[in-house]
Amino acid sequence: MTLPAGHPLVDGRTSASLLVRAMRGDRPATRPVWFMRQAGRSLPEYRAAREGTEMLEACLTPDLAAEITLQPVRRLGVDAAVYFSDIVVPVLLAGVGVRIVSGRGPVVDEPVRSASDVLRLRPLDPDALAPIREAVGIVVDGLGSTPLIAFGGAPYTLASYLVEGGPSKDQLRTRALMVSDPHTWAALLNWCADVTGAFLRAQVEAGASAAQLFDSWMGTLSRGDYQKRVAPHSRRAFDALRGTEVPRVHFGLGAGEVLDLLPAIGAEVIGIDWRLPLEAAAERIGAPLPLQGNIDPAYLGAPWDLLAAHARDVMRRGDALPGHIVNLGHGVPPETDPDVLARLVELVHAEP
Amino acid sequence: MTLPAGHPLVDGRTSASLLVRAMRGDRPATRPVWFMRQAGRSLPEYRAAREGTEMLEACLTPDLAAEITLQPVRRLGVDAAVYFSDIVVPVLLAGVGVRIVSGRGPVVDEPVRSASDVLRLRPLDPDALAPIREAVGIVVDGLGSTPLIAFGGAPYTLASYLVEGGPSKDQLRTRALMVSDPHTWAALLNWCADVTGAFLRAQVEAGASAAQLFDSWMGTLSRGDYQKRVAPHSRRAFDALRGTEVPRVHFGLGAGEVLDLLPAIGAEVIGIDWRLPLEAAAERIGAPLPLQGNIDPAYLGAPWDLLAAHARDVMRRGDALPGHIVNLGHGVPPETDPDVLARLVELVHAEP
Repeated sequence: MTLPAGHPLVDGRTSASLLVRAMRGDRPATRPVWFMRQAGRSLPEYRAAREGTEMLEACLTPDLAAEITLQPVRRLGVDAAVYFSDIVVPVLLAGVGVRIVSGRGPVVDEPVRSASDVLRLRPLDPDALAPIREAVGIVVDGLGSTPLIAFGGAPYTLASYLVEGGPSKDQLRTRALMVSDPHTWAALLNWCADVTGAFLRAQVEAGASAAQLFDSWMGTLSRGDYQKRVAPHSRRAFDALRGTEVPRVHFGLGAGEVLDLLPAIGAEVIGIDWRLPLEAAAERIGAPLPLQGNIDPAYLGAPWDLLAAHARDVMRRGDALPGHIVNLGHGVPPETDPDVLARLVELVHAEP
Repeated sequence: MTLPAGHPLVDGRTSASLLVRAMRGDRPATRPVWFMRQAGRSLPEYRAAREGTEMLEACLTPDLAAEITLQPVRRLGVDAAVYFSDIVVPVLLAGVGVRIVSGRGPVVDEPVRSASDVLRLRPLDPDALAPIREAVGIVVDGLGSTPLIAFGGAPYTLASYLVEGGPSKDQLRTRALMVSDPHTWAALLNWCADVTGAFLRAQVEAGASAAQLFDSWMGTLSRGDYQKRVAPHSRRAFDALRGTEVPRVHFGLGAGEVLDLLPAIGAEVIGIDWRLPLEAAAERIGAPLPLQGNIDPAYLGAPWDLLAAHARDVMRRGDALPGHIVNLGHGVPPETDPDVLARLVELVHAEP
């Protein structure tokens, strides 16, 4: 499929890029590839740039966040940048006390567990997003015709950090609030949807060419709870992008049980983890959407031949899709050798 | 269904118990109920009994392990005891250095990550299981006609502790070994199957009336990897029970994608977490097996009416099964109020 003349994106900066074409349902001869969490941990130039700067401070320093976002594009030859940030950044900008504790993750000063805790949450002042807009502007200038993907955490995952107060294996306190107090839950998830929606929208208005919502913890939910108590809020987050026309990408870890519900939340591209082969995922989704994924990160440390065979297998399974953006089934593990990622990009670009 | 006269279990100590009858496909008028992790953390008498004793030391002290196993039967009125232990106990008894670090979980002194690491693993000396047999003997004497369920970790979950060296969110190192070095992987999983199989068998020979294999991490696997690289080893663990005739129960967290593969590993009863309703799980399994579960532990802290309605809904969904043992969809959370568990047992026993 070729976009018709007169389409609002035909003359855009990135509309001819492999990524945007594939996300809009085109099948370019070369398949686009990028990696979730490519900006950060595994790159030595990232560790050098971050030295002496706390994670959230780095996210809010425009020059530094822009530099970290650009690093993997230069080194790996990927077809997109993804905005370097943390899912709690918009929460912090809305005034909630939160820090990233090394080796542990985000820790919230005062966990949000009651109706009165939720009432104390204040809306995100659009002016607070100025450093984000500034960083995205620098990134977009540096990228030229390479697209930037906006990054945001889905309401359920955001809420789970707020309720648990930190990382948790099973989100039990979060799910307990969800089933015990539906009104407080809905208010909390709406707040999360609004802050993450504003965060995504700021990135798009400043020049991002696509927007991806990450729901890291949705796999801990039953289908019924996802459908009734979570999906409407993920939809609300995507709705914040109304009128912007960028492709909306949804990635959820362990989302196999609810893939068919994702088109209705507004997802136009769906990221698939390593648990399901692409053709099985496409069948469950039902709607003919481009898919993103699903190389198993466990292969990144395997002998090259095994990784290459696995990547080619994923690409063959992607052949019949309406569009396929090659990616991992989860973020780049910190110990990954960047040379392996660069070689993987070459392989994807050389394969039909 | 009533067991025919002459059946080898008809005259057994526990063969008329609600649990054993339900696990053999009978539908007693009162439905049996017990709780995964009922022995331990949430009971004050457990914390008192454990005071000053390390976790693994408690597991290997027969009087203490037996007392802890019996406590929830006395307090909660459940229809079965489950043997108090830790999945790394047979690993420790086979000579691997491992400790339980409070708030973190099992930590292995020297993680197992290479062919030579696996070669160094030694078989479990049956004599080392003497404290387990002794504890089970005390429990069985104390239980009378109430059955004891033997407890063991599945090979994949056991291997993941050995490879990661401690708890991990995604079992990435474990899965990397699995895809990188299939021969080392198979040798490691066979070793795990043999130690956990011997551990289960010792409990059954000493008087346990059923045996449950726990695969806490199987939800991190793709269906293909589970089928090819894990299921044969879980089968090997169950095969260690050959000739014992006790019902074999399999519980895997996030097992939705592979439920149909579980009858072939030898599971005769299947535990279902909270992600899928029982009727959907039964449909996927295909074979007419009794199911165990699947009350969502997130409801344990909810107002009683909500928990009661949820428990009744689970029971209604279990009505059409060939057998239903009521349980949680995961272990009892440490902060659970024991009175809520006792009230839940009363509810289950009062419902048709």
